[in-house]
Amino acid sequence: MDERACKPRLRARLAGLLLAFVAAFASPVALVAADAPADILPSWNDGEAKNEIVDFVTRVTSEGSADFVAPAERIAVFDNDGTLWTEQPNYFQGMFAIDRVKAMAPEHPEWKDKEPFASLLKGDMAGVAAAGEKGIVELVMATHAGMTTDAFTKTVTDWFATARHPRFDRPYNEITFLPMRELLDYLRASGFKTYIVSGGGIEFMRPMTEQMYGIPPEQVVGSSITTKYELDGDAPVLMREPKIDFIDDGAGKPVGINTFIGRRPIFAAGNSDGDYEMLRWVTAGSGPRFGMIVHHTDGEREWAYDRQSPVGKLDKAMTEAEQRNWLLVDMKNDWRKIYAFDK
Amino acid sequence: MDERACKPRLRARLAGLLLAFVAAFASPVALVAADAPADILPSWNDGEAKNEIVDFVTRVTSEGSADFVAPAERIAVFDNDGTLWTEQPNYFQGMFAIDRVKAMAPEHPEWKDKEPFASLLKGDMAGVAAAGEKGIVELVMATHAGMTTDAFTKTVTDWFATARHPRFDRPYNEITFLPMRELLDYLRASGFKTYIVSGGGIEFMRPMTEQMYGIPPEQVVGSSITTKYELDGDAPVLMREPKIDFIDDGAGKPVGINTFIGRRPIFAAGNSDGDYEMLRWVTAGSGPRFGMIVHHTDGEREWAYDRQSPVGKLDKAMTEAEQRNWLLVDMKNDWRKIYAFDK
Repeated sequence: MDERACKPRLRARLAGLLLAFVAAFASPVALVAADAPADILPSWNDGEAKNEIVDFVTRVTSEGSADFVAPAERIAVFDNDGTLWTEQPNYFQGMFAIDRVKAMAPEHPEWKDKEPFASLLKGDMAGVAAAGEKGIVELVMATHAGMTTDAFTKTVTDWFATARHPRFDRPYNEITFLPMRELLDYLRASGFKTYIVSGGGIEFMRPMTEQMYGIPPEQVVGSSITTKYELDGDAPVLMREPKIDFIDDGAGKPVGINTFIGRRPIFAAGNSDGDYEMLRWVTAGSGPRFGMIVHHTDGEREWAYDRQSPVGKLDKAMTEAEQRNWLLVDMKNDWRKIYAFDK
Repeated sequence: MDERACKPRLRARLAGLLLAFVAAFASPVALVAADAPADILPSWNDGEAKNEIVDFVTRVTSEGSADFVAPAERIAVFDNDGTLWTEQPNYFQGMFAIDRVKAMAPEHPEWKDKEPFASLLKGDMAGVAAAGEKGIVELVMATHAGMTTDAFTKTVTDWFATARHPRFDRPYNEITFLPMRELLDYLRASGFKTYIVSGGGIEFMRPMTEQMYGIPPEQVVGSSITTKYELDGDAPVLMREPKIDFIDDGAGKPVGINTFIGRRPIFAAGNSDGDYEMLRWVTAGSGPRFGMIVHHTDGEREWAYDRQSPVGKLDKAMTEAEQRNWLLVDMKNDWRKIYAFDK
């Protein structure tokens, strides 16, 4: 019975994600644009990417086809940040945490003298980064733990109702990729069960995924802190504790898929090296499999970044995409529209 | 950031369950029988229990009714051991572990001199119990960890194909409660999504729940050990590690429900104090709620036990059932048949 102390590697992984978040504030990204029509997947330009998707779906849904897959096994998993919605200039959940620190600051006068809160309240992200792993985990826990699950859900819902994306000045639920929402619809119409498998917080995503993507809470897999059943008077509540439970990123994604879904999906979509192991796990199964990577190539309509980006770094997965037969979607050339509000 | 060492309380809880398992070998149980016809839920006798269930389902599914519940929120959770199938003379997963130790013994000559393996191989369950918590966890890990998830699934599937229940001399999948399978069907036909939420191992249940209960793997919540993503040559695998991840029992059940499902069910069924917190959590929600407890009262056709039983102890939940408006199902009088093979 292995009883080694809790989860140092989880903490390190979380801190890695969060340090990337902080670093991103100091590193701008660049670039370009294009356009064309369609009918199924209407926001996708006609071409190889769209053809490959339609061909795969046709094969696995055609009874009698050698590649036919029973509906129960038609499981599709999607990363969220950078795959279903934008992750620039930084992870939206990080923006939420910053807004929460600011909103909670009046009740925490001690934060004025305590790092990394003091730096954050002054807008000094380099100072936040200097607090390192420990400081960043403290920020997360201060804003995500210490309340009931119901209270946290309300906070998240309220934030989404009022917060606006800094570049587009629109609610975050509009900063989702229309072609990916069409793909989710298309897969569901073809008998697929669609899941989110994201490094983001499971309870941060769940209040919004149904309205954003048509994905119900029970089909959202994400990172989590622990919760504890308690009685508040005679009323049972679940308290969110300042303790990491699971980090659903990198090699954690196949683990999360296995834990939550219990079968191997046949379709996976991601956009970064955090999705590499998920893509490997899904596409290594027997029978027809589909892996795709959203490559952020459109600096005009969205952002352009890959191997050097602190947020959403895409390096190893891109290098191996061809050899592993993963579709590399070129946002700029394959997507007619990126957001629903694009002309 | 709380970094206290791993999960002593989880280990203690697991050991508690397992000590009960061992103790049960030394404590027999007793008692009695009845009969009548039906149309919906045909194996339920006409009477109050059946009426209450049908009334609830009718109310939440009648559009325009004040108690109408949207289909997406019609989530029903079921304990497994003692609720959907028999848990006597002992937990079936424990029988599996014992069979596995015997099957694996030739590859482990050292077990002849090592407790609790030595006692188990001699059929001396008192000797196994004497090894205490540590020994019992060792038995579990020896039989459940150290292989890939695929290999474990195959072992479980093979066991179910050959093992037979000691009293009925039938495969374990026949030792399921027909009235509960009818209830699952009835709820699903009424737009409910049915889940298992069990203290049993999630990967022990998943290979069988679809054929036994019509519940797919992604709707099974249970206890787990950790898994780790690894490469076997170039092939990704998930290795099962000898480390407890989550114990889905008692106060763990609302936690598991929140983690896996992310919404509060409106219907819960259990049979022991291990389901108490789940029943509280489910029935404390607003709007129409249904809690039910299967009370094992039929020593002739099944078993009769409650407050004193080491396995499936039902004490506190029974005491509070009336005050909390939980239906206490009397197996002997409410069920026309218990198993499909009953005359």
